[in-house]
Amino acid sequence: MMRRILALAALAFAAPHAPPAAAQTETLLIREIGSLHVGGRIAGISGLPEQEIVFSPGAPPIRINPNGQFQVEQMYAQYVRLANPRARVPLILAHGGGLTGVTYETTPDGRPGWQMFFLRAGHDVFVTDAMERGRSGWARFPQILAGEPVFRTMGEGWSIFRVGPADGWNAAAAERRAFDGTRFPVAAWDQFMKQGVPRWVTTDRQIQAAYDALVQQVCPCVMLVHSQGGNFGFTAALNAPDKVRAVIAIEPSGTPPDTADAARLRDIPHLVVWGDHIAGNAFWQRIRGNVERWQDRIRAAGGTADTLDMPAEGVRGNSHMIMMDTNSDDVAARIQRWMEARGLMR
Amino acid sequence: MMRRILALAALAFAAPHAPPAAAQTETLLIREIGSLHVGGRIAGISGLPEQEIVFSPGAPPIRINPNGQFQVEQMYAQYVRLANPRARVPLILAHGGGLTGVTYETTPDGRPGWQMFFLRAGHDVFVTDAMERGRSGWARFPQILAGEPVFRTMGEGWSIFRVGPADGWNAAAAERRAFDGTRFPVAAWDQFMKQGVPRWVTTDRQIQAAYDALVQQVCPCVMLVHSQGGNFGFTAALNAPDKVRAVIAIEPSGTPPDTADAARLRDIPHLVVWGDHIAGNAFWQRIRGNVERWQDRIRAAGGTADTLDMPAEGVRGNSHMIMMDTNSDDVAARIQRWMEARGLMR
Repeated sequence: MMRRILALAALAFAAPHAPPAAAQTETLLIREIGSLHVGGRIAGISGLPEQEIVFSPGAPPIRINPNGQFQVEQMYAQYVRLANPRARVPLILAHGGGLTGVTYETTPDGRPGWQMFFLRAGHDVFVTDAMERGRSGWARFPQILAGEPVFRTMGEGWSIFRVGPADGWNAAAAERRAFDGTRFPVAAWDQFMKQGVPRWVTTDRQIQAAYDALVQQVCPCVMLVHSQGGNFGFTAALNAPDKVRAVIAIEPSGTPPDTADAARLRDIPHLVVWGDHIAGNAFWQRIRGNVERWQDRIRAAGGTADTLDMPAEGVRGNSHMIMMDTNSDDVAARIQRWMEARGLMR
Repeated sequence: MMRRILALAALAFAAPHAPPAAAQTETLLIREIGSLHVGGRIAGISGLPEQEIVFSPGAPPIRINPNGQFQVEQMYAQYVRLANPRARVPLILAHGGGLTGVTYETTPDGRPGWQMFFLRAGHDVFVTDAMERGRSGWARFPQILAGEPVFRTMGEGWSIFRVGPADGWNAAAAERRAFDGTRFPVAAWDQFMKQGVPRWVTTDRQIQAAYDALVQQVCPCVMLVHSQGGNFGFTAALNAPDKVRAVIAIEPSGTPPDTADAARLRDIPHLVVWGDHIAGNAFWQRIRGNVERWQDRIRAAGGTADTLDMPAEGVRGNSHMIMMDTNSDDVAARIQRWMEARGLMR
């Protein structure tokens, strides 16, 4: 397997490694910045008691009947359209669990994020918030979003995101132990935690339906997805192989079920990107095993499922939040070269 | 009072009314698009039971201790910086209750919103989500956000936002009655409702603190605020008169308390913008009365508090969501001319 990864890596990423610094300070000529909500449905809620509410100090109280019809389960996407895109189709960026599209904006330590990188590389870029997260809104009724949301503590991600060992977290920043050579900007960890939002763990079906609606509305496109978003991207391609032109899955945490028809993805190149410290981490090894089986199934069906394994490229220290790591532009540049090699640019 | 409004309107808005169409189709030269979270604090939560959670299908279950430290009460702002801004300082856009910064993006019927208008007019623009809304995140613990959030039904805004009479709402779109000549794009009402998010009514203090932190971090600036955001803008100026260079309040729903020192605003021009159908609406007349008293206090202290009253300008039919109305660009152009007249442009 490792040899295969290396061979594919040599194929796709061996282009001369031009430093991205020059291009990444250029101004952008923009046609339009905008957003849309897509998908969802109208749901009726009844049986709740009336409320009397003062919405702003000084405003008269308003008697509110909280029952009625509600827009629920939609999702939000913000787009930046270039005056002269080089990419053949727009790039949709989708975040992981407990986060929002902010994942791809300015990094927690203040550097331009992947939204800017891929805009400067010539893509029209959509940054999305999954159903129930961020600007998508969340319907506050258990009939819509079942169960209780979970909300990440400041320390939970330290080991799950492979910034440091499981016993390396400490509430006191000076006492935290990261992996030697980690590329996550650890001094900005607390700032990163400000990006977190509650998430339900019962709502994959609704999140997927909203992504599918987005694909129908704004694609053809390339989907770049992260962590929990990985499976939403894989499945969006299965559900609309005529619309999704490629899937780039950054540390995907899930895969389609064994019943999924990988042959539908024969013409849709896939790239999976991994950071460091997966060997020796049972949780991530199991996830990666699932993803590699999914990639094997795509290849067995005649499709393309490449891997960009940063340690195999000789780059150590990348975390799960690779788009925020100090070498985020370098990783993006490798992904960009893969897109060039796969014919996704003009 | 009406005479005074008209006189001020004549002063500020009488510049030849150049149609904004030409400028509003131009491409934009952008230096950077990015975002930040500001403000908030670290809060400790304890005493909650452990949970075992499968976060993605196929992923192994993770045992989660939901207790710990959390980043709470921060807020989100997204910025677009022009290569060559004409405005002297950035423009911060703040939304109203139950909504997010999406208020200023593409209108529900698909036209460019005020974010694009003011970018094209030469402003660096920040679009903000209030604490607890949108990408700011919301801490799901009652110790942080007290009480239950409220969530707007599809019909609630129909009369409160003055699109139609109180008895004009109907779940069936064809049966809805709007005011004759309303400028809200009523066919896009259901789409507009997708922009809604739950809101608490107990959190003004925390929302204000986050805006104040934003002002300290990114200003000097001009604040353009809507509805519930109105009072946050007024108060932000009171709290940082050295940072806020002007306040433009679109249909503000609240005002600072009578104890507030309006003399601090002597050098900070204020503009209040009103739509139609306020006469005859007791709720909005009472709000407007409060706002006019606040404007009187600013003027009594030697400051500037102008009013742009659209019906007084001869334009009928504007709703509370004036930045989404079909003449949104015309209203924005009048606000832009006020900013020119008040010396806020280079």
